[in-house]
Amino acid sequence: MIVLTFPKPDIEQFFQTLSVQDFVLSPNEKQLVVSSNINGHYNLWGMDLPNMFPYPLTAKNQKTHALHYAKNGDFLIVGFDQDGDENIQLYALEPSGGSLLDLRQKEGEKHYFGALTDDGERLFYTSSKDNPSYLNGYCFDLTTGEETVVVEGNEAIIELIDVSADEKSILYSKHFSNSFMPAIVKTNGKDLSLTPPTDDEFTVTEAIFTTNDSIYFTTNYEADFSYLARFDIHTNEFTKVLELEGEELSSIKYDKTNGRLFITSTSKAEDRLFVYDLQNNQSKQISLPIHFIKKLIVSTKGSLYLLGEGSTQLNNIYRLDIIERNWEQLTNYKIPGVSKEELVEPEVVTYTSFDGLKIEALFYRANEERNNGHVIHWPHGGPQSSERKYFISLYQLLLNRGYSIFAPNFRGSTGYGLKFMKMVEQDWGFGPRLDNVKGIEWLVENGYVDYDKVFLMGGSFGGYMSLLLHGRHPEYFKAVVDICGPSNLFSFIDSVPEHWKPGMHKFVGDPVEQKDKLIEDSPSTYLDHMKKPMLMIQGANDPRVVKAESDQLVEALEKNGTVVDYMVLEDEGHGFSKKENEIKVYRRILEFFEQYR
Amino acid sequence: MIVLTFPKPDIEQFFQTLSVQDFVLSPNEKQLVVSSNINGHYNLWGMDLPNMFPYPLTAKNQKTHALHYAKNGDFLIVGFDQDGDENIQLYALEPSGGSLLDLRQKEGEKHYFGALTDDGERLFYTSSKDNPSYLNGYCFDLTTGEETVVVEGNEAIIELIDVSADEKSILYSKHFSNSFMPAIVKTNGKDLSLTPPTDDEFTVTEAIFTTNDSIYFTTNYEADFSYLARFDIHTNEFTKVLELEGEELSSIKYDKTNGRLFITSTSKAEDRLFVYDLQNNQSKQISLPIHFIKKLIVSTKGSLYLLGEGSTQLNNIYRLDIIERNWEQLTNYKIPGVSKEELVEPEVVTYTSFDGLKIEALFYRANEERNNGHVIHWPHGGPQSSERKYFISLYQLLLNRGYSIFAPNFRGSTGYGLKFMKMVEQDWGFGPRLDNVKGIEWLVENGYVDYDKVFLMGGSFGGYMSLLLHGRHPEYFKAVVDICGPSNLFSFIDSVPEHWKPGMHKFVGDPVEQKDKLIEDSPSTYLDHMKKPMLMIQGANDPRVVKAESDQLVEALEKNGTVVDYMVLEDEGHGFSKKENEIKVYRRILEFFEQYR
Repeated sequence: MIVLTFPKPDIEQFFQTLSVQDFVLSPNEKQLVVSSNINGHYNLWGMDLPNMFPYPLTAKNQKTHALHYAKNGDFLIVGFDQDGDENIQLYALEPSGGSLLDLRQKEGEKHYFGALTDDGERLFYTSSKDNPSYLNGYCFDLTTGEETVVVEGNEAIIELIDVSADEKSILYSKHFSNSFMPAIVKTNGKDLSLTPPTDDEFTVTEAIFTTNDSIYFTTNYEADFSYLARFDIHTNEFTKVLELEGEELSSIKYDKTNGRLFITSTSKAEDRLFVYDLQNNQSKQISLPIHFIKKLIVSTKGSLYLLGEGSTQLNNIYRLDIIERNWEQLTNYKIPGVSKEELVEPEVVTYTSFDGLKIEALFYRANEERNNGHVIHWPHGGPQSSERKYFISLYQLLLNRGYSIFAPNFRGSTGYGLKFMKMVEQDWGFGPRLDNVKGIEWLVENGYVDYDKVFLMGGSFGGYMSLLLHGRHPEYFKAVVDICGPSNLFSFIDSVPEHWKPGMHKFVGDPVEQKDKLIEDSPSTYLDHMKKPMLMIQGANDPRVVKAESDQLVEALEKNGTVVDYMVLEDEGHGFSKKENEIKVYRRILEFFEQYR
Repeated sequence: MIVLTFPKPDIEQFFQTLSVQDFVLSPNEKQLVVSSNINGHYNLWGMDLPNMFPYPLTAKNQKTHALHYAKNGDFLIVGFDQDGDENIQLYALEPSGGSLLDLRQKEGEKHYFGALTDDGERLFYTSSKDNPSYLNGYCFDLTTGEETVVVEGNEAIIELIDVSADEKSILYSKHFSNSFMPAIVKTNGKDLSLTPPTDDEFTVTEAIFTTNDSIYFTTNYEADFSYLARFDIHTNEFTKVLELEGEELSSIKYDKTNGRLFITSTSKAEDRLFVYDLQNNQSKQISLPIHFIKKLIVSTKGSLYLLGEGSTQLNNIYRLDIIERNWEQLTNYKIPGVSKEELVEPEVVTYTSFDGLKIEALFYRANEERNNGHVIHWPHGGPQSSERKYFISLYQLLLNRGYSIFAPNFRGSTGYGLKFMKMVEQDWGFGPRLDNVKGIEWLVENGYVDYDKVFLMGGSFGGYMSLLLHGRHPEYFKAVVDICGPSNLFSFIDSVPEHWKPGMHKFVGDPVEQKDKLIEDSPSTYLDHMKKPMLMIQGANDPRVVKAESDQLVEALEKNGTVVDYMVLEDEGHGFSKKENEIKVYRRILEFFEQYR
């Protein structure tokens, strides 16, 4: 009997968790193009189906922010920013890869892909270049180099969504705020709203043409949860099509070959998939191999490709075998030497907040033999976003080292209806904060943790919330990690990207009219109470929460005698896109918790 | 009509040429494990056949120098050195990857994998740890941790090759020199030579057990070209089995299931593959998808897996469909955005040297529309090696930029018989040098190049030859690139690895007895003539040609007023294993030629 005792999983192994960020399929279904960090940076790789061995297409070392395969199969449209600065530039790329051809670029400006005509000749996109606050929609002719403005942004940020096959109708959204986002179709020079007039706010999540006249979309117009609706350009008629109890419908893909729609929905932090038959108006649920859908593609032939993940499943691409009705896994990322059984699935728990509101949370409990008794409280970012069953290698690493993680979907989170989501607007610091506090109290009351064993960590809004919780409830936490969180709401409002500014009043509050509230809700107000050890992490290029937000806090805290470990990543923006940075950050976070445990 | 004019292939694209260095197959044929630089460094990746999508197994960032899958399927034995220092250490690795388990290590020493018993319990390997000059063979018991010396090296470097299934016989080679390498089987404590007694020198290239008593091997014993032979341990009988006119037989793989051998041979710089049926003694050629075979594996079920490349084909793995008799390509590396048609296949040309000896050369001619009229003369390394139809991205990059490349198999090269190969021994600087000079003259005489348009570049022995040609024939060259070439044969002989030393007399010459010849053949003797611009590249950890060899030359040349660009790679040995270093080196080489063109 041979006995080889292999070492326990090393930190390094959890860092080797690679990911597919985006993917696209060639029209003939013979090539899959993925954006993946297989070589440590995000790059585009091709695969000649059915062979899944990837070959490099680009050496750009950046995440992609647009990925579209021309219907004629001749080229791709791809978008890249520089190290997280979010100034996306558009390029063309040959299917065999190689050098990028500049398509639409302007330094310091954003270019969002909208649509490409089937003949590959006209590119519709949105850009900040002439209209930094509200953006314009453009049609760029690739054959002549001529460009026209097709939609002018005013009163709200616009973004081109789709163009009808006859190019007579252009679909675009108006982003007033995360909770007020109608969609408009411009047809024969006339703007038609997909939804009837109303004084209420609502959002349109996704909208697509199924014919030149027919648009299907998901919206929560006059409802709390999003449903499927249809708009007829010809008759100007709005119809509610499909509503699913307690389900938040979001993305729609059109399967032209079989005359049906694939619709994604979310409930209880998990995604679901439905197929809706346009002929007989029947819908049916399709079981999923993962818990979170990142992207769906319907091939020209009607095959369904899915990019998704789960708490214990890395980001991978799957294909649905329509006949067998099972999912074939195409990419095959896993953690080296760590089996799925060694990873932890969260429990979805519910607790009651200070005002009776029910709050759902994801609770990852470290396996009994590893449990070190400590819980890391994680308020998610957004805030109009939510904690879902994502694969988060940092979580699994911490769990493997014995830490449990508690991540509440406090008020303001998405997936719980429009009303719930709006509750964070102009109230960043009261309700959401107490939801977090109540979550910790619930943990203690139920015997999951002792008061002296709670850590706090969050990024973006979660970083803000961590700072605020630290400032207002320091007695709850042993130590605090803040990843690019705003520290002062006044300077934050001042420094966000230009096109965010029109929405800041509604989203956060007005610096003049709500001055007292913003002072009360700014972590910087409570500097004197922030005495617990801190680790602060910031991307130097972050355009959303600028580095000055962290700089000023670090300076003030250090003056105050607080121990602050400050880590600036020179080539990152809002989040970390490079494997080596991720490794540095995760290692430091683990060391930090180990130090103060 | 859409007109997108994509940029011409960029240098970067040629650098994105990834490679499979080695591979192995799980006994159940369900997992392929490859060593590939897919993430910029060589690491092990797994693939769950038939899906070829790779997932990472290790994060060692080193080339593998041993890769063996235990027959019981439970683990792999892998070997790594550190950044090219060639001190290979052996580890065990789980098939799902993760942390490496130390198996046999000793700092500063070499450990070469030999064999692992089918039950995975006993590891046979060769190490320098107790015998730095000649090495010993060991049997390490993985269940008890006990170790015994099974073969002691003396008079020549030994290396364990294989162990019979009953473990009664151990096969090993004795490396006196590259041209004298007999193989011995140790059975019941007795050493039996696979070949009958002779005063002539010869080599055994590969040897394997087919039964406990029967060994098949390739050798040039009493012949100029290698053939297939058999040795019977029971009867002590040597039999010549298969000889192929003009073919140099090298590697043998045993297909136990079908009772046949797969044999590799070389002729005219191209590899061939033959299958030899042990029942009916018939051999048949199998057509190949590439020109150079790097590794062959026969699966337990009898499928054939091949790792190979060609001048215009990157390193990839193929599987032979025995029924269809065609090769299926499994890995899919290619140059991004550059089609095979844009790459250049070499012509195999022959010319006559100063003494009438026929010399074969590979001549890569830049496509007419790109040709800049310049030829880069490339003497290969070894020298007892040869220029073959390898995929060399540097060549293809230079060809794409208009340079042609001429690479002669001067005397001393392998693949042209034993006599030809021995011609470089104790004559590094005369015959081989004039073969190179004659090659350039042949190019000029045939109108392929003008005398003032020849560059010179080589690595290892090729670096030495470049230095020597520069010193003795400076008028032939515009500028010279030397990659880790010995500059002074005396100090070179002194500084090679310990286990090389016994063979240096035969290989290069005796510093005392052949003092005058070694002075005459040392590039350092001709310092005063080396006036052409030079680029010198050296790995700091190179154990074969130590950095001091380059240092001393650079110092002397600079004193002499020669323009020397000196590039030291801190984390490399004899050659470049890391993508970023490769990129740096190749970029510099191209710039250097462009500068002096």
